[in-house]
This record gives sequence, structure tokens and C-alpha cells, in this order.
Amino acid sequence: MTQALESLTHPQTQTRTPETAATFTGLRCKECGAEYEAKALHVCELCFGPLEVMYDYSTLSQVVTRKRIEAGPKSIWRYRPFLPVTSDTPIDVGTGMTPLLKANRLARRLGIKNLYIKNDAVNMPTLSFKDRVVSVALTRAQELGFTTVSCASTGNLANSTAAIAAHAGLDCCVFIPADLEAGKVLGTLIYSPTVMAVQGNYDQVNRLCSEVANTHGWGFVNINLRPYYSEGSKTLGFEVAEQLGWQLPDHIVAPLASGSLFGKIYKGFNEFVKVGLVEEKAVRFSGAQAEGCSPIAQAFEEGRDFVTPVKPNTIAKSIAIGNPADGVYALDIARKTNGNIEAVNDTEIVEGIKLLAETEGIFTETAGGTTIAVLKKLVEAGKIDPDETTVAYITGNGLKTQEAVQGVIGEPLTIDPKLDSFERALDRARTLERLDWQQTLV
Amino acid sequence: MTQALESLTHPQTQTRTPETAATFTGLRCKECGAEYEAKALHVCELCFGPLEVMYDYSTLSQVVTRKRIEAGPKSIWRYRPFLPVTSDTPIDVGTGMTPLLKANRLARRLGIKNLYIKNDAVNMPTLSFKDRVVSVALTRAQELGFTTVSCASTGNLANSTAAIAAHAGLDCCVFIPADLEAGKVLGTLIYSPTVMAVQGNYDQVNRLCSEVANTHGWGFVNINLRPYYSEGSKTLGFEVAEQLGWQLPDHIVAPLASGSLFGKIYKGFNEFVKVGLVEEKAVRFSGAQAEGCSPIAQAFEEGRDFVTPVKPNTIAKSIAIGNPADGVYALDIARKTNGNIEAVNDTEIVEGIKLLAETEGIFTETAGGTTIAVLKKLVEAGKIDPDETTVAYITGNGLKTQEAVQGVIGEPLTIDPKLDSFERALDRARTLERLDWQQTLV
Repeated sequence: MTQALESLTHPQTQTRTPETAATFTGLRCKECGAEYEAKALHVCELCFGPLEVMYDYSTLSQVVTRKRIEAGPKSIWRYRPFLPVTSDTPIDVGTGMTPLLKANRLARRLGIKNLYIKNDAVNMPTLSFKDRVVSVALTRAQELGFTTVSCASTGNLANSTAAIAAHAGLDCCVFIPADLEAGKVLGTLIYSPTVMAVQGNYDQVNRLCSEVANTHGWGFVNINLRPYYSEGSKTLGFEVAEQLGWQLPDHIVAPLASGSLFGKIYKGFNEFVKVGLVEEKAVRFSGAQAEGCSPIAQAFEEGRDFVTPVKPNTIAKSIAIGNPADGVYALDIARKTNGNIEAVNDTEIVEGIKLLAETEGIFTETAGGTTIAVLKKLVEAGKIDPDETTVAYITGNGLKTQEAVQGVIGEPLTIDPKLDSFERALDRARTLERLDWQQTLV
Repeated sequence: MTQALESLTHPQTQTRTPETAATFTGLRCKECGAEYEAKALHVCELCFGPLEVMYDYSTLSQVVTRKRIEAGPKSIWRYRPFLPVTSDTPIDVGTGMTPLLKANRLARRLGIKNLYIKNDAVNMPTLSFKDRVVSVALTRAQELGFTTVSCASTGNLANSTAAIAAHAGLDCCVFIPADLEAGKVLGTLIYSPTVMAVQGNYDQVNRLCSEVANTHGWGFVNINLRPYYSEGSKTLGFEVAEQLGWQLPDHIVAPLASGSLFGKIYKGFNEFVKVGLVEEKAVRFSGAQAEGCSPIAQAFEEGRDFVTPVKPNTIAKSIAIGNPADGVYALDIARKTNGNIEAVNDTEIVEGIKLLAETEGIFTETAGGTTIAVLKKLVEAGKIDPDETTVAYITGNGLKTQEAVQGVIGEPLTIDPKLDSFERALDRARTLERLDWQQTLV
């Protein structure tokens, strides 16, 4: 691997202590506990269970301190000892440390008191939480000697893999369903990867990629590199804990696609407790799905401990996974933390996007609209206490799914460049607003 | 003003020292030096020159230290003593502290050695440098008692004003030219402001807004609040100096629209020297324009010290200002720093967008494409030394100007969800790539 890595300028802390280099020790099956070396493996050879990265937590406890983390880079790499890479120069394009915004205006509208938005709609470089997992996966891919990287994606992952591969100088081939939003396709092609548009849904794309992973020597970030990749999502737990002043929230609401994100936020919180960075606390985990693809919400409602696959049909394409790999783990977490899993329809999703934009100035994509609509539904049903410190995770940017809101946000008032033309339009706007307001009262 | 302000969670440093509250002392005319109180004024009553904020630099020198800044919020507000607000709770939605990326792959492609990209394509909340100026302007607007805010915009400013006004609970009415890119219109409407689409170019929009500012009691961020607003751009100078390890670069390349950004980066560097945060150094300032709207580049080439207005006709709409308010100041800075001002055509702009995406994984809008294309032109003409530490300012995100690249970035390869369909497509892709490569050699 002669490829020189470019890295972000972090004037404060370029040095890394050698003792952080080996805090992860290998892979272990989540089902049967069989252990494996830290290679490009993702399925247990014995029981076909998913593999997860193991850490040496006693070493970790000695290595990490709040002060050391705070002095680290302004990116996910401030938590490097908790991430499964060995490189001295992980790929750092500024990913992570997105704002945790106190959402007072949205909270008032919903009737709760302590609401925060974790805003990955402005994550770097490609405006979704996927930049976290891809930064970790591609760093590990380079360590394992891969020169071509790939993924099965509902859009955001393709954007992120293509962009970060371009920066790192890796060859890239991504797979997407053929019916994705225009912004997500263009936002992938611009980085010049090879793009395969598969005529089928995400679950079919995913199955095809599993076959390709077996026949080509490529690093699929969410298949053969999945154990490393998914660890990147823990940083969404770490950052919230740090940004709340080194404490855990009472309740979190996050979207559910494969279910992986949900489980990794949970793991992130638990690891911080385990190494003594935050105090132990019962955090409730609630999940959000779109009605058009809600296999986990259905299982939750029906009290099942298994997830029955569905055929997706929703505008929330980025979370439209009908056969979620980590669905049962998400179910388990929601139940044991006294949380909930709810689904909302496409109209509610669009209303959720508008509500967040109008109250907080954050423009999210359909997945974020799903989260906000479910947050609202949970509050209205009394399933979120008004006093709970609640964090809603916004995972992607609305500029990528413009189709979803086009036609329901009105049009500009067209005027001539003259004062009287403006005054007439302003009168019209005020009349319309008054009508709107009267209709709201009715 | 009963509106409670929401602010970002900054666990480390919520406290503010009282001595930082009064470092700006009023306004002064850039032309005749007449002084004014710090109100909503932008033009000198005596000579019609532009007004600028004055600071007490001797107090500033005592108040600011590198350490204090580094311990501040991860946003533009870490430089609060250099910004013209008095509030204890400025509007902080995470704006600023965007990555300064060492662009080794782009540098190699261009044949230079020390290139950095200051990446405001991922600025928060609306993905352009305008979030900096609007955060300052709306904080000041609230201090001055405005309840409705407004702007004349080429797109990015409208996005930013609408979003941050929504977050702060201010009424908002924005003015844009009627022919803007779809993403910029939608990315404004989503926040529910009143949007006036003016049938004319930006210069006509701007003139109309000057009239409206006189007849309505609104705070126009870039008209009656312009002296405060424009100071926000200094943070693009401050951050680069801090991120380079508290030193100035040798050369910067930035886009020129009104010319204000250029002048404020210059002012930012000079203020850091003045208060002793960095050592004095000759920094070369080069500016980028689109050929379809290049009044400043034309004046530079012809050796004029005045700017002749033009009618804009370019895909780089966000910098299409035919009558640039600060054009003469930009000319002066480029000349006295031994810099250059160049223009590139629309084809070169699109190539610039693609080049940055392919080499660095950054997707910028047309203004950023202009900057990269001019950077390339300057290197090829020997006007940037390969050894100079050069910073190119990327000011906005490509997802807002998708029209500009649609049709020139290829299409995905459509396949069935079957291994043999994929293999055939991959062969096709490799053949095409080989052909591409052979054509490049010819």
C-alpha cells in the first residue's frame, strides 16, 4: 500500500500515543461467541451469526480520559481507541462532531421541555451519518490491503463511499437500487466511481453484493468489512454523551433501517459507562420506521421476537430495508430499555421534514422526517415524558431528497423589480397567511 | 425582544468573560473616516462611502489569546471578541470551524506541493459560507430590535437567512432573482419564509431591496446590516490561520462576487497580526470570477482602478454580481499583495467541480468550480509557485446546483440483480475506462 494518505489539519493534536494502537483484539460471533482474527470476515463459520469487534476494555479504561478526548481532533477520530483501526493516519475528512442543538422551538411546538437534535444532516463530507461508518471502513480496508472498495447502498452510503474513496485514492464500485432519488445518484457519480444501478429493491442489491464479495477481491464496506464499518456508528453515542457534558440522555429516538445504527448507539453508551467516562443510567431507546417499510415496528407491535421481511414501498428510500440484518437486536434493545418502535406514513414524513425546518432551520431528508414524525407521535401518545432529556438523531440532508417535498412547500411570489409590484405581493402574502391562520383555528 | 434564543451545546465553555463584551466601538466610513454609532446604518451621510465596524485593538490584544480561542466553542463564536455583537447568547447553530483539508491528490494533479482546501461546502446549517455572515447579522438584528429580517440573494444567502431566522424565531422575507437553481429555491422555501422571486438579475434585486429597506422597518442582512454582516467573513481568515497552526498561508484563492469576502479574509489576517496572534507575513490574494460575469477580472487585466458594471450570463449564479459593491477594494488588495484576478468560462467551471470531486471527494457548487478552475489556470501560468502554501476557499455545496453537472458526469450502468448481468456491465465499464485512458494519452 504505497498510497499516501491525506489527513485533516489538526494543529492541536497530531501526535498519537502508542498505547492506543491495540485496543481491539479480534472478532467474535454475537450468537455463539466463537472468536476470529481481525480480518475481512463478517459471518461466523460455525453458526452463521454476525461478527462483532472485541476490545480490551481494561486497557481502554487506562488509556482514555475525558481530557484526552477533548484535546483530540474535531472529528470521530477523537474516539480512536474505541474504533477498530491500527493506522497512525486514519482517513480524516472532518467526519463527526456535528452539532447537538438544543431544539427549544420544536420542543415548545411538541409540548416537551428538553429536546436536542443531533444533526448529521451536516456531517462531512457527504451530509449523512454514513460518513462515520465509511471513514472507519475505508481506513480498515487500506490496513487489510484492499485497493478497490464497494458497497450496497440506498443512496447515502454510495455518496459517502465514493467521496471518501476519491479522497483516499481507492478504486470504487457502488451498487444502488435503480429507482433512487436524483440527488443521491448525481451525488455519487460526481466522484467518478463505477455505479451499478440494480433493477430491484435494496434487499436484492444486497444479495447480489454478497455474491460479488465472494467472487471479487473487493472490500465491501457493509458486507465483508461490516464488523469494522458498523463500529463507526458508536460515535453517534459518544458525541451525544460528550456534548451533553459527559452524561447520557434519558431517551433517544433514531431511525431504523437495518437496525445497526440503533444497536451501535446503545453499544457506544455502554462502552462509555464501562470505561468510566460517564455514569450508568437507564436510557430509553425508541425507533422510527416508515409505514411502507416497517418490519421491525410490526414485530414490536405484535410482540414477536422475530422480524418478517416486507417489500418496501415508501418515499423514505434511505431506510427502506425490508429484511433488516440487525432487526432482532433493535427489537430487543427497544424492549429492554422501555422504549418504543413506531411507524408513520409518507404524509407524516413530509410534515416531519417541514416541522423541523420551520422550527429549527434544519433541512433533513425523508429518514429525518420519519424520526421527527415518530417523535411527535410518541409525545402525543404520552410515550415520551415532557421532562425527559430526549435526543432525536437526524441522519441525512434534505437537499438529497428534494422530490419528497417538491409541490408541498409552496412557490415563490413572482414580482417585477419595482416597489409597487413588491407591495402588492406582500399584501397577497399577508392575506394568505391570515387565511392560513384562520383555517388553523377552525 | 422576548424571544428566547436557542444555542448550541458547548459543554466546555459556556461562560463568557465580561471584558469581551465591548471590543467594537462603532462604525466608520471607509472613504472619509466619518464615525457613527453602531446602529443599522451602512452608508456614510457625508460621502456615501461604505461603513465598517471599528474595534478597540488595544483592548482586544489584552483579551484574546490562542489558548482562550482554542478553548472556545467549535464555531465562529470562538472569535467573538472580533465580531460586532454584544449579546451573551449569539445565535450559534454550529456555523464555522469547517475542515481545512490538505489536498495532496489535487495538488499532485496540478503540480504543486502545499495545497489546502477550506471547505465551506459543509458549513452549517445551510452548506455555504453565508452561514457565517448571517449568524452575525441576525444576532446583531436582534440586538437592534428587528423582528423581521430580509436579504437580497443569489441563493445561498436566502437559504441561510431563512434557516437561521427559523431557528431564532424571526419573521423572514427574502428576495432572489427568478431564474435561480431549483435546489436553492427549494432550500429556501422549506423553512417557510416569504420568498419574492424578482424578474431581473441580482443587481436589480439589490436595488429593489435598498428601496424596501427605506420603507419597511426590516433588517436586511446585506443592506442596512451590511457592516455587521460582512464582518462574519473574517472568520474564514481566522480559521485558516488557526488551522495552519497559528500562521498565515503564502497565497489564497477565493471567488469574487461583491468582493466583500476577499476583503474580509484580508482584514481577518491583518487583525490577527495586529493583536499578536500570528506573525506578520506577505500573503498573496488571488480572486476568481466567471467569464460571464467578470467585471473585477476585466478591470484587473486592463489596469483600471474602477469597475465597469456588466450584465451577468454564467452558470455560476451565486457569484453573478455585475455591479460589485466592494470591487475596487478587491482590485486594490490583489494588486498590493502581488496576487491576480482571473476568469474562467462555464466549461472550465464544470471541469473544476469534477476535478475537486474526483481528487478530494468534495462536491462544490459552481462558485467552487470557478475557484478550482482559476487555481488550475494560475498554476499553469506560473502565477502560483509550487512551493507556496496555498489555500483555496470552497464556499458552497454542489447539491444546490445539480443542473450545472447533470449530463456531463455520465450515467449509472443499469443491471439486473444477477451476477452475470453485473459481470457483463463490469467488462463494459473496464473497456470504457481503457478507451478513456487511451484517449487521454492521445
